[in-house]
Amino acid sequence: MMWYSQTGAESDVVLSTRIRLARNIREYPFPVRLDRETKKQICETVRDILDGEGVKLSYIPVSTLTAAQAVSLAERNLVSADFISKSDGALLLNGDESMSVMLCEEDHIRLQVIKPGLDLEGAYAEADETDNILEKHLNYAFDERLGYLTQCPTNLGTGMRASVMLHLPALAAAGNMTRLAATVAKLGITLRSANADGAGDIYQLSNQVTLGISETAATENLKSIVLQIASQERQARKSLVKDEKTIDRIYRSFGILKSAYLMTSAEYTKLYSAVRLGICEGLIDADINKLNELYMTTQPATVNAANGGELNAAQRDAVRAKTVRDALG
Amino acid sequence: MMWYSQTGAESDVVLSTRIRLARNIREYPFPVRLDRETKKQICETVRDILDGEGVKLSYIPVSTLTAAQAVSLAERNLVSADFISKSDGALLLNGDESMSVMLCEEDHIRLQVIKPGLDLEGAYAEADETDNILEKHLNYAFDERLGYLTQCPTNLGTGMRASVMLHLPALAAAGNMTRLAATVAKLGITLRSANADGAGDIYQLSNQVTLGISETAATENLKSIVLQIASQERQARKSLVKDEKTIDRIYRSFGILKSAYLMTSAEYTKLYSAVRLGICEGLIDADINKLNELYMTTQPATVNAANGGELNAAQRDAVRAKTVRDALG
Repeated sequence: MMWYSQTGAESDVVLSTRIRLARNIREYPFPVRLDRETKKQICETVRDILDGEGVKLSYIPVSTLTAAQAVSLAERNLVSADFISKSDGALLLNGDESMSVMLCEEDHIRLQVIKPGLDLEGAYAEADETDNILEKHLNYAFDERLGYLTQCPTNLGTGMRASVMLHLPALAAAGNMTRLAATVAKLGITLRSANADGAGDIYQLSNQVTLGISETAATENLKSIVLQIASQERQARKSLVKDEKTIDRIYRSFGILKSAYLMTSAEYTKLYSAVRLGICEGLIDADINKLNELYMTTQPATVNAANGGELNAAQRDAVRAKTVRDALG
Repeated sequence: MMWYSQTGAESDVVLSTRIRLARNIREYPFPVRLDRETKKQICETVRDILDGEGVKLSYIPVSTLTAAQAVSLAERNLVSADFISKSDGALLLNGDESMSVMLCEEDHIRLQVIKPGLDLEGAYAEADETDNILEKHLNYAFDERLGYLTQCPTNLGTGMRASVMLHLPALAAAGNMTRLAATVAKLGITLRSANADGAGDIYQLSNQVTLGISETAATENLKSIVLQIASQERQARKSLVKDEKTIDRIYRSFGILKSAYLMTSAEYTKLYSAVRLGICEGLIDADINKLNELYMTTQPATVNAANGGELNAAQRDAVRAKTVRDALG
């Protein structure tokens, strides 16, 4: 079962937690200055180390992917757009997609762990364990004063980016997002919409500071802010779901999800947000895991990759609508 | 059971058939020149004749109606807007609302029979039977050359207006309505949208000519045109329901009807049209009679009259949505 088909802590507000560690190997320049052959050598070295230590990951050179498969990985936050556009890196990926390693993206190694719900400790522990395995075998670029060396100075220090995906329909409806983003910015935290135009009311909260702070302090700081925002969101939901226009929107969104024969990804995202709110507030009886899973699997390239990669937009809309109907019907 | 809760012939295209006879009593001037007392006298005379002959009708003086009740009668095509605004006429109405008599509207007597589906013969026969009863007791204003005398010269002759309500979503979608209206106009038939902006794709087809033509010839002429239009509509539906956008619209309309918590009358009309098409074309399994009935009963004043007459628009939208959900759920 994929990580996104499961529910974690605080899942009424927190969709997922992600830890990403940036690491480089002392003996090599940053990837931007490497030739294709040397990159391949690094990719295979890292693959072989983890394989030898019993960490079961698939090895996926970007050059072997179709366009749909590559973009689908980006849609699921497993790779960056930059990574798939360059075509000479490789991805390591485990079965439930909770662990992935981009090799020769901006840094030699970008190790990522995703967990459902709020689980900064768990995600960090898992990333740290794999990082320790790699560190046994590799000579990491590390400076006593600066910490882990990375290509971009914003990652220097821990090399760790911790981020949490939040579903904030009530705070967004109350028009609180701009003020909230300004508030958390003062605490070294970035809050931004996960989708264009704030679609789906899904926001990513992540730490900005990597230098002069321990991993534990950074994740604890982020966690306490997540819990405060979650509490505000829950409070705001209480009044939002008393509004009859909201109630109407929730139920009709569910009705449309169960009955449409054509659906764009943007529409799914919008309806998902309303129905997810309805489920969490007890208005709608449906499996939230299925809806979360569909949010991942109904993205355009992911639909395309799952259906031979040759669908046009109208065909995707038909396949997507059927997938949603079948899942909820 | 109300007439509009039943299905008649050609009901995939024909919603209802209506025959209206205009009659006046020779001894009195037209209502526009009568005082209140004389009008009341005429109203009661007609009531007593039909009562004495065993025709069971409720007697409803307009002055006894609340505003919501009066407008509700107009919404169900039982009275004219003009009739309820004047307040000194009276309505005779039978139990299933298929027979109604406006007394002292524009003419002394406006006898109307409505039937579900296409039934010009049946509706005319029933109107004619009641008309004959009245004629036994009243001295109708009748001229050997002109026929029945009416206040408005457009009704002179038979005094009969026959009209048929048609559901024409496919011809409307194909943009054929303007041309069709021009064509039937040459045959002495008026085609017009039943709702503002063509909402619901419901059109009324009625005879214009009352002078120099028998009732039978007029209804047969109308019937043959209805059957031709119905055949064109069925043809057009075959291709319309192959279009995936139409299929999507049909199913999501049904989904919204079953799930919304707020619904305006205009939205019901729009969704009704799509779902009605879906039922007739075998895409949706639902009771068409229920949908037809809701088209009558969810109109604003009718909702209001059924709920004490004191609802504001938002309350009506909530009551309407619940009524629809309960009927289809």
